[in-house]
Amino acid sequence: MNTTGIAVIGCGRIGRVHADSVAANDRSRLVRVFDPVAAAAKDVGERYAAEWTTEVEHVLAADDVDAVIVASPTSTHIDLLTRAVRAGKTVLCEKPIDLDIERVDACRADLGDLTDRVMLGFNRRFDPSFAEVRRRVAAGEIGRLEQLTIISRDPAPPPADYVRGSGGLFRDMMIHDFDLARFFLGKVVSVSALGANLVSDEIRAAGDIDGAVVALRGIGGELATITNSRRCAYGYDQRLEAFGARGALNVTNQRATSVQFSGPDRTDTRGRIHDFFLDRYTPAYRAELDAFIDMTRSGEPAEPGFGDGRAALALADAAARSLRAGEIVHLRR
Amino acid sequence: MNTTGIAVIGCGRIGRVHADSVAANDRSRLVRVFDPVAAAAKDVGERYAAEWTTEVEHVLAADDVDAVIVASPTSTHIDLLTRAVRAGKTVLCEKPIDLDIERVDACRADLGDLTDRVMLGFNRRFDPSFAEVRRRVAAGEIGRLEQLTIISRDPAPPPADYVRGSGGLFRDMMIHDFDLARFFLGKVVSVSALGANLVSDEIRAAGDIDGAVVALRGIGGELATITNSRRCAYGYDQRLEAFGARGALNVTNQRATSVQFSGPDRTDTRGRIHDFFLDRYTPAYRAELDAFIDMTRSGEPAEPGFGDGRAALALADAAARSLRAGEIVHLRR
Amino acid sequence: MNTTGIAVIGCGRIGRVHADSVAANDRSRLVRVFDPVAAAAKDVGERYAAEWTTEVEHVLAADDVDAVIVASPTSTHIDLLTRAVRAGKTVLCEKPIDLDIERVDACRADLGDLTDRVMLGFNRRFDPSFAEVRRRVAAGEIGRLEQLTIISRDPAPPPADYVRGSGGLFRDMMIHDFDLARFFLGKVVSVSALGANLVSDEIRAAGDIDGAVVALRGIGGELATITNSRRCAYGYDQRLEAFGARGALNVTNQRATSVQFSGPDRTDTRGRIHDFFLDRYTPAYRAELDAFIDMTRSGEPAEPGFGDGRAALALADAAARSLRAGEIVHLRR
Amino acid sequence: MNTTGIAVIGCGRIGRVHADSVAANDRSRLVRVFDPVAAAAKDVGERYAAEWTTEVEHVLAADDVDAVIVASPTSTHIDLLTRAVRAGKTVLCEKPIDLDIERVDACRADLGDLTDRVMLGFNRRFDPSFAEVRRRVAAGEIGRLEQLTIISRDPAPPPADYVRGSGGLFRDMMIHDFDLARFFLGKVVSVSALGANLVSDEIRAAGDIDGAVVALRGIGGELATITNSRRCAYGYDQRLEAFGARGALNVTNQRATSVQFSGPDRTDTRGRIHDFFLDRYTPAYRAELDAFIDMTRSGEPAEPGFGDGRAALALADAAARSLRAGEIVHLRR
Repeated sequence: MNTTGIAVIGCGRIGRVHADSVAANDRSRLVRVFDPVAAAAKDVGERYAAEWTTEVEHVLAADDVDAVIVASPTSTHIDLLTRAVRAGKTVLCEKPIDLDIERVDACRADLGDLTDRVMLGFNRRFDPSFAEVRRRVAAGEIGRLEQLTIISRDPAPPPADYVRGSGGLFRDMMIHDFDLARFFLGKVVSVSALGANLVSDEIRAAGDIDGAVVALRGIGGELATITNSRRCAYGYDQRLEAFGARGALNVTNQRATSVQFSGPDRTDTRGRIHDFFLDRYTPAYRAELDAFIDMTRSGEPAEPGFGDGRAALALADAAARSLRAGEIVHLRR
Repeated sequence: MNTTGIAVIGCGRIGRVHADSVAANDRSRLVRVFDPVAAAAKDVGERYAAEWTTEVEHVLAADDVDAVIVASPTSTHIDLLTRAVRAGKTVLCEKPIDLDIERVDACRADLGDLTDRVMLGFNRRFDPSFAEVRRRVAAGEIGRLEQLTIISRDPAPPPADYVRGSGGLFRDMMIHDFDLARFFLGKVVSVSALGANLVSDEIRAAGDIDGAVVALRGIGGELATITNSRRCAYGYDQRLEAFGARGALNVTNQRATSVQFSGPDRTDTRGRIHDFFLDRYTPAYRAELDAFIDMTRSGEPAEPGFGDGRAALALADAAARSLRAGEIVHLRR
Repeated sequence: MNTTGIAVIGCGRIGRVHADSVAANDRSRLVRVFDPVAAAAKDVGERYAAEWTTEVEHVLAADDVDAVIVASPTSTHIDLLTRAVRAGKTVLCEKPIDLDIERVDACRADLGDLTDRVMLGFNRRFDPSFAEVRRRVAAGEIGRLEQLTIISRDPAPPPADYVRGSGGLFRDMMIHDFDLARFFLGKVVSVSALGANLVSDEIRAAGDIDGAVVALRGIGGELATITNSRRCAYGYDQRLEAFGARGALNVTNQRATSVQFSGPDRTDTRGRIHDFFLDRYTPAYRAELDAFIDMTRSGEPAEPGFGDGRAALALADAAARSLRAGEIVHLRR
Repeated sequence: MNTTGIAVIGCGRIGRVHADSVAANDRSRLVRVFDPVAAAAKDVGERYAAEWTTEVEHVLAADDVDAVIVASPTSTHIDLLTRAVRAGKTVLCEKPIDLDIERVDACRADLGDLTDRVMLGFNRRFDPSFAEVRRRVAAGEIGRLEQLTIISRDPAPPPADYVRGSGGLFRDMMIHDFDLARFFLGKVVSVSALGANLVSDEIRAAGDIDGAVVALRGIGGELATITNSRRCAYGYDQRLEAFGARGALNVTNQRATSVQFSGPDRTDTRGRIHDFFLDRYTPAYRAELDAFIDMTRSGEPAEPGFGDGRAALALADAAARSLRAGEIVHLRR
């Protein structure tokens, strides 16, 4: 069987996650890696026996590269994905496309149908549990979907430096949940956001919030809430409930083992939930890569695609506007 | 031991619940019951060997009545509680005090300190599980409270006739959740509401919504969401999560037995959750009555009191305004 | 409606449990109570407004007594139940009938069909969860029953004095589980017992064991295990699993509230399970009394009956013999 | 870093599992594979780019082979492991060593201290959940261990042909549970077995049982039960409870996702548990291989070792004797 040649652009934490998935997948091979910092590129390249370079053109021009994973800083995404699709590659781009929706729209105008070649790295759509709920909802198991509850909390806040360049909680963290809401609701027409600064003085000083609840209305009249916190004492809290006319489907948290303890002052106690996004989402990254390989081979439009990345960013912007103005934001239908 | 003589005003469904609690409690005796419909009053009176009457004055003037439970239609609450406290009785008044907050304020102005003698029937504060969470939060077990998630769904919608006179979902159903939010957050400063009509055309025709999500901000910066639905396929869904800096406390649903089934296509399956508010809240009604007897005997101000009833109604009004105007409502601090 | 007049013989802990159930039941009234200790009889009698006596004949000869609950020391059971059924009363006799199976057989020979008037106090058959499993097994939900797992552990060992007169763990504690096994399996044909002394030196000194596992084979080839311990750090551990060709039904432990805690080093933690047999089995005692009233009124043979009491004792004897001889005991089919 | 060269002997189902683990482990490389059937050897060899052969001597004599995994039919284990350790390799031998304990003893006499170079493939000791319970028991979290409950059920019975050569349920299936019991209890001194034929007429015709419960007593007085069935409607049922003076630790079943469904007639329903031993024990096979690499490199005696394989077989023999003779078997201390 032919394998798909994949290059990874950006050898930071998330780039390494992708490099590892590509190397482990029978249907792909990691052919090239790029990072402007030679030591990072070399480290990843040698680990997986891939060519490494500090010149991105060496990746984009290479014949053995069928597909490119863009895992570089957000500000470089548009430039790199544009060059990659123009070079005939498919692209898996980490979220968000950009922090500025006008630049995103300009990119879309520029690329036209080529945006179909860009898949967005909304890994949660590929999580086996979330994907199972989506499938069962689509199959009608709970009847018409009426209410969606998403709770998503990080174990600990990121450094203030990171926060400063992140575009804020809505664009950096909740953007995953906005995409998840769209995965279930399709179009969202109303957004109302409340924010909090209860966790970190540094985040406040950086001008961002560290917790938020957002209420959404879908175009079909469905209602949703998203709850985020930058800190969670018991681990990486990732839950969802889809409630419909005939029942509900829930995704509960997951743990490394299935051990329970009962003693004098407590019973059925489990250990911490997964603490780290990778422990929680390793199977999702694997499945995401499979979908990317499929899309590269088939020529079908990517899903989630450029438009999904744009729509999630638009929801993040609407939430930011709701928070700033203290009002409910209604989106064009 | 002396027992507290209690009269029940109103012999409908909720009046019967109270009559039954009073009769079963060692510290109280059911002395009189009133209903304008003689058959109803007689039925309850004979069942518990209490005097029955269709003349409310026979209850309010009676020496053997120390305390009165007002379980009549909402529109009669203010008149009856006013006459009862003026007659020297303590009052346990079913929620809401009234549908019109101006009438509530007029009543407060009229009664002054006598409002201390009026306890509000927010039974969920007395639910052993919710009360345990509140105690443990107050004891600092989860650190500072940061986020509160309340999900509350009825098994089936009420008749449209009932809906028409109910004051709407916020004043009739979510008022319990507003009080529960206040039980944890104290003062609420922002309210944002989204509503839905997905369940019942009759409710829509009656001008009401049948589902809603509300986002709240507490005066301490805490965030909360409340999710309501007038229909829930699997029973009477009553859950709460209090999330804080050092952990979380959850109340999950409850069932009549602890049986689980595993078979070819499903595992660890439990039966329906409690279907009926009485099955779910019987212990809460018992504990509420105990608190009412304590308050009657001690002369201490009621808790939850008239002010709590007023505050929950104000939140319901704010939610209705938010829904109508499509904006976030900010309350006076 | 006519109520059934019931007398309670023996005003110790379990006698009081029954007196309370009788008084609370709409279909029965507590008419008389007996205890040889006047203070005990008086205390219970006055609490429930029943006549009290230290002369058992005053109970047995009374016309207002339709039915008698025998809750006196085990050694008096046979004498009292014999006199009561001869006096025309139905009897609910606490387990075991007697510690000596020969005396039980002599009683059966003596009473003949009158034993149909004797119901045995195997309360677990009436526990809503165990009874639900039994019903669903009988309805074929798990196909043919193949394996049964019973775990039953007391919170803390009884005083050594009690142990000395108890007949040993098998006749005193596991007898409930033997009856539960028979409730599911019907006839048992093989018994193998292993015992332990790990909990209490006093129990060892009294010549008894404080833990045991017993393996059983039913007449249909089903296999079962029973695990008992006289001490359980987390409460009164009462679980059962019925496993069949098409699935399994489990009864898990129960708690007073449905609160769960998650914090830095543990998640989904619940509180202690019920600690006390009464908290766990209150609904069972209520349902048992209902069945006793039904049987008293209908004249149908009692179930569980005298024969069930005899059979459970025979299993306890077989287990004791297996333990003593170190061999598997095969019962006559 | 140097990698450990490993050969796999036997390219059937379990041999492929090991080959996959070896290939995926950073610290080992799969250098050679053997199977008497060329097609099987070639298939596995080419899949992992290892040399393949139908001559076992080509494996045992090879310098690049540091360690050998024996995954061939049971009857060949002793011959192959003997030749491998004599050739200076360490050995990971699948269970059981042999069906005949006399041959095992002869092998032990023959090899002497060389048996330290033989690790037994009791993979459950390396399951993250069982291993965690063992560690926490050893750390004293539940006080002295008093009772152990093991439930282990296969999804579906093996073919009758397989059963005929398997040595019977005790030596083929329950041997894992006997080892698990020894993992917790150390030495076992009493064994009592009851068997059943409820699942498969073919298994009965093959002279074997298809279900069993076994009671054990450890040398410290601990009690244990093991329940096995060759069929389980809801999947591969693998549970354990360690009960001690201060609490209990349970291992519950595991599933592919954490989705729960609630609908009109059931709530909190999960999907099937893992159906296949590989899905359940993949992490265990990985950890087992790590321990084998460590032992190969360090020269330390294997754990679990040859003696553990012998002891588990002795328990299986004792259970078979107990079943045959209908008596409790007491082992030499």
